[in-house]
Amino acid sequence: MPRKTRWESVRRTAAELFAASGYAASSLSQLARLARLSKPGIYYHVRDKEELLFRICESTMAVLLQSAQLAAGSGRDPVAKLRQIIRAHANHYWDHSWDLVILFGQRRYLSPVRQRRIIALERVYLDLVRAIIRDGVRRRVFHRVDPSVATFSLFAILNTLDSWYDRKGAMRPEALVRQIERLFFGGLVVRTRRRAHG
Amino acid sequence: MPRKTRWESVRRTAAELFAASGYAASSLSQLARLARLSKPGIYYHVRDKEELLFRICESTMAVLLQSAQLAAGSGRDPVAKLRQIIRAHANHYWDHSWDLVILFGQRRYLSPVRQRRIIALERVYLDLVRAIIRDGVRRRVFHRVDPSVATFSLFAILNTLDSWYDRKGAMRPEALVRQIERLFFGGLVVRTRRRAHG
Repeated sequence: MPRKTRWESVRRTAAELFAASGYAASSLSQLARLARLSKPGIYYHVRDKEELLFRICESTMAVLLQSAQLAAGSGRDPVAKLRQIIRAHANHYWDHSWDLVILFGQRRYLSPVRQRRIIALERVYLDLVRAIIRDGVRRRVFHRVDPSVATFSLFAILNTLDSWYDRKGAMRPEALVRQIERLFFGGLVVRTRRRAHG
Repeated sequence: MPRKTRWESVRRTAAELFAASGYAASSLSQLARLARLSKPGIYYHVRDKEELLFRICESTMAVLLQSAQLAAGSGRDPVAKLRQIIRAHANHYWDHSWDLVILFGQRRYLSPVRQRRIIALERVYLDLVRAIIRDGVRRRVFHRVDPSVATFSLFAILNTLDSWYDRKGAMRPEALVRQIERLFFGGLVVRTRRRAHG
């Protein structure tokens, strides 16, 4: 197996293991067994278990960040930009939900320096989204909401999917994303003209 | 100290301890020390650490459920009912954020039977909110959103406050709740009449 592919297999197997058993309860011996490698085969890629956790978190953020940067730089209107980010984030969740479970549930096991690195990447991501929302508010395309509250509310919904969305249920992923967009963009309450600005 | 007050003090101290150090890393000896009781003084109230965790989760759900039942039975319109539930939930968070941290972060340490009991209470709570939303959709007070997606999205926002809202920041709790209501009820995007039903 080419080196890059082998690393990707180690990374994916580690993410599955950490997400299923928890970082603290997982060992590199288990990982080696699941990835069908020797322990030296694991150490070829990472110095220790924590580096593995770090690289899972870092690469997850890198992918999310790249899509957000593409959307932010697209020159489209704020609604279209946000829609693009929501879909990319949701798609990452469908395809790599383990990564997000680990990013949000297990990064506390990282060393302080590495936690700060992940938090810094997250801040860049959040700032991109917040800037799009702020721009939309300024241009009166969006209601006068607090851009931070709107940003965090959006990711609260997207990042908790794992705990409430049943992939085997009747609602398809695409339909779920449309529902979330409809709710986040349009709100719950039908405004009659009389109370439209109430 | 009267027995009930003493139990409340044990419960509050335990909630603080579990939320700060994690359930797994906390011991009844630590708790006894923090609560200024002997270990038999703790065992007077609970059989073991897991019972303590269970009673924290159960009583938290009982309080939330009671406010939701009051709101659901109030005979008011769906918007007012939801607003009442959002405020009660947020208030519980302001006053007892430890309880919610434990309820969502640590109930996995409960025995399967007790986990099922907590999940059953949660389901009653969610069902109450979902029924209010379904009723609002039926009466065309609410947009045609999926009531489950709307319910889970709302609680995703309210139950993650701990990870994104800075209590020491510039935004007061009441202002934050108004922002969340405005966003959840009114949505982000200003609808021009042309695309109002688009």
